[in-house]
Amino acid sequence: MVTAPLGRRPGKRDTRTEIIAAAREAFRADGYDGTTMRSVARRAGVDPSLVHHYFGDKAGLFVAVMDLAHDPRQVSEQLALRAGPKGAGLVLAFLDIWEGPASTGEPGSSFVAMMQAASSAPEVATALREFLTERVWRPEGGTPDWGSALVATQLAGVGWARYIMRVEPIASATPEEVAALVGPTIDRYMAGGHAPEGAATATE
Amino acid sequence: MVTAPLGRRPGKRDTRTEIIAAAREAFRADGYDGTTMRSVARRAGVDPSLVHHYFGDKAGLFVAVMDLAHDPRQVSEQLALRAGPKGAGLVLAFLDIWEGPASTGEPGSSFVAMMQAASSAPEVATALREFLTERVWRPEGGTPDWGSALVATQLAGVGWARYIMRVEPIASATPEEVAALVGPTIDRYMAGGHAPEGAATATE
Repeated sequence: MVTAPLGRRPGKRDTRTEIIAAAREAFRADGYDGTTMRSVARRAGVDPSLVHHYFGDKAGLFVAVMDLAHDPRQVSEQLALRAGPKGAGLVLAFLDIWEGPASTGEPGSSFVAMMQAASSAPEVATALREFLTERVWRPEGGTPDWGSALVATQLAGVGWARYIMRVEPIASATPEEVAALVGPTIDRYMAGGHAPEGAATATE
Repeated sequence: MVTAPLGRRPGKRDTRTEIIAAAREAFRADGYDGTTMRSVARRAGVDPSLVHHYFGDKAGLFVAVMDLAHDPRQVSEQLALRAGPKGAGLVLAFLDIWEGPASTGEPGSSFVAMMQAASSAPEVATALREFLTERVWRPEGGTPDWGSALVATQLAGVGWARYIMRVEPIASATPEEVAALVGPTIDRYMAGGHAPEGAATATE
């Protein structure tokens, strides 16, 4: 079961901020897989129960460190309940993480910061990849999945064009316009059957 | 007409390096559109003819600053000569820029550096956008083009997954495998007809 991150709370801001700073160091030093709620508590000099109180679980902590508006896993779960093509919904959910009502700062600023951090330090890229692998790409384990990886390329590229490069007409389009155009690509990738001939990895 | 960049030459390495450093400052300060061969020469304290000698034209200079293995415009021109679907060829050409024989350093390292620079400084993103707009997206001028912008999202996302995040199975796949999977997406975007209903921008 996924415990929702508790989000920002009034008061106790310093402790929460200190835990986030300690978690950022821990994820960078030990990766996502190698970090525990307990090790973050130790770095921050607080009781582990306080880390659970503020962030729920490790994923909630990572979501806070990356300043994501939502846990991507919750997005996946919501989408899984829908019938029919999910691509456009996934694009909308992706954009909502960075520019929706629950996002902080300028629209897309968390995406820009994440891309900067990941391209500046391989350790950050590793932690982010481990997080996405566990929470989004193959939460049930299993072999590498072409479909999930290809979906990730298309979504990340949309964020790059919209928030970093500000390429028109993508930068000024509504989320719905972007979703209508990119959704069919996502659907094609999610439909599977994408293993290249002779490739050693499994697909869908 | 496009003049090919002259590429790296033996000798005179210091002057060439100094011109690249001056050009980097100029593109950041004035954007791609606002930079001239003459303004770069002035910053570097050399005769403009020397800048032309080493880099051919402004695009060649930008290609050198970004450490690209090829001028993207030449790639577009080569592809334009081919009949049939071009998506897979475009993916191969894109990967060749970052990891082909003419690339320098670790495979993909120029892409990582470019993404880091663009996400760290809006001025770099602006210069890169102006360069791509002039040389790749709408070299003949005209209205914003959904197709070109969407192609850019997909290619940039592939670079992100392969070089920055090292997402499997994309990171270890051959260029041909990636091209076979992503090519049809590129073809769909290049085929046009992508303007969302009610959008003010033109397509194609």
